[in-house]
Amino acid sequence: MRYEELTIEGRNAVLEAFRSGKTIDKLFVLKGCQDGPVNSILREARKRDTIVSFVAKERLDQMSETGKHQGVIAHAAAYEYAEIDDILRRAEEKGEPPFLILLDNIEDPHNLGAIIRTANLAGAHGVVIPKRRAAGLTATVAKASAGAINYTPVAKVTNLCAAIEELKKKGLWFVCADMEGTRMYDLDLKGPVGVVIGNEGEGVSRLVREKCDLTASIPMKGDIDSLNASVAAGILAYEIVRQRMC
Amino acid sequence: MRYEELTIEGRNAVLEAFRSGKTIDKLFVLKGCQDGPVNSILREARKRDTIVSFVAKERLDQMSETGKHQGVIAHAAAYEYAEIDDILRRAEEKGEPPFLILLDNIEDPHNLGAIIRTANLAGAHGVVIPKRRAAGLTATVAKASAGAINYTPVAKVTNLCAAIEELKKKGLWFVCADMEGTRMYDLDLKGPVGVVIGNEGEGVSRLVREKCDLTASIPMKGDIDSLNASVAAGILAYEIVRQRMC
Repeated sequence: MRYEELTIEGRNAVLEAFRSGKTIDKLFVLKGCQDGPVNSILREARKRDTIVSFVAKERLDQMSETGKHQGVIAHAAAYEYAEIDDILRRAEEKGEPPFLILLDNIEDPHNLGAIIRTANLAGAHGVVIPKRRAAGLTATVAKASAGAINYTPVAKVTNLCAAIEELKKKGLWFVCADMEGTRMYDLDLKGPVGVVIGNEGEGVSRLVREKCDLTASIPMKGDIDSLNASVAAGILAYEIVRQRMC
Repeated sequence: MRYEELTIEGRNAVLEAFRSGKTIDKLFVLKGCQDGPVNSILREARKRDTIVSFVAKERLDQMSETGKHQGVIAHAAAYEYAEIDDILRRAEEKGEPPFLILLDNIEDPHNLGAIIRTANLAGAHGVVIPKRRAAGLTATVAKASAGAINYTPVAKVTNLCAAIEELKKKGLWFVCADMEGTRMYDLDLKGPVGVVIGNEGEGVSRLVREKCDLTASIPMKGDIDSLNASVAAGILAYEIVRQRMC
């Protein structure tokens, strides 16, 4: 397990952090701010004996990493990276075939956050990211995830190919998103599955693509080359949701 | 028709602007930059007799609105807003039932850009945005759209409700994204359709929602409240693609 210091910014993200039971070391609130959402946050802080400081806007601006603190910044003890086994256990506990989203070097923290958010709502059991050349779990990611980072485990692995090999031994199939693939509607994606989403510029790398069992394409009817990475992840994840529901 | 001055930044966005036939008034390139993508851009500029200035990094940084110019900034004559009739004519020319995406006050330019990008690839005929309280077609939007802004018409209307009323007279049905709605897989979305996507924080406003014929929900299996607006737009737009294809 790895621990990292974390600043959580913005009302939704801070409230979600409290509600998910995360340990908040210290809470900073804009002096004089008394509206509904802020009062909800203060109520949660009181319940947990969190230290609260009321500070001036300048102080918050200075502390803010995203520039969008909305008058509330929390210092959390840590975001904990999960292990892949934790993710698989989650699927087992729910009695569902495992559904993982693997990211091959997503660099934009907004994309990473949006994908964790989608993973949570699509019922994926976890997200796997590589250690190098990829966005990690920063405050910007936490905010973009709208709090999903508190619920959906994210595992960090040294080598994505090796992780895929290990997971294959446990019965998972891997499908990567690629324009050259089979139309996603024509694939059977109901079983234990890992979906691989590529980097914003280059897509899924060759080595990782070669490890995948299936290649799924999202139909493209337009003039440009590719969808935004987090939008593509959402469309492919929800094709799995559809197939599992219908 | 309305015209606006526009700065286009980043290699893909500038190259797409040239290739789509847009008039570039002036091109600024980082001095000494000679790699493949930049040479492609310079070739396009030469073909069209565009004025090219080779400038220092400081100058580009100063001109840049997004901070991500990648060594290339173009000043385009204008992005032109379309009229709704242009969008409908496009559907007619393609012999397809109209497919519009209407945005009820999307404020984040990255979301607006990503949605125009999705609209292009999902084969939507155009995007409709309101004049007030919404992101317009800025350089950040153009970059986030990955060039789709050059192909997919965007109409700006004074009143979204009035626009919906007008379009209903022309045979369109309206479906809005809302958690309380019918599961999107159970709706028939094959006909002439306008999809309404709500604001990042508040969803679709009551007045607009009341004008819609159908309310579609994306199944949510997780712990948090909502998807990112551009991801939700992508998932709903592709459910229409799927129904029209299958």
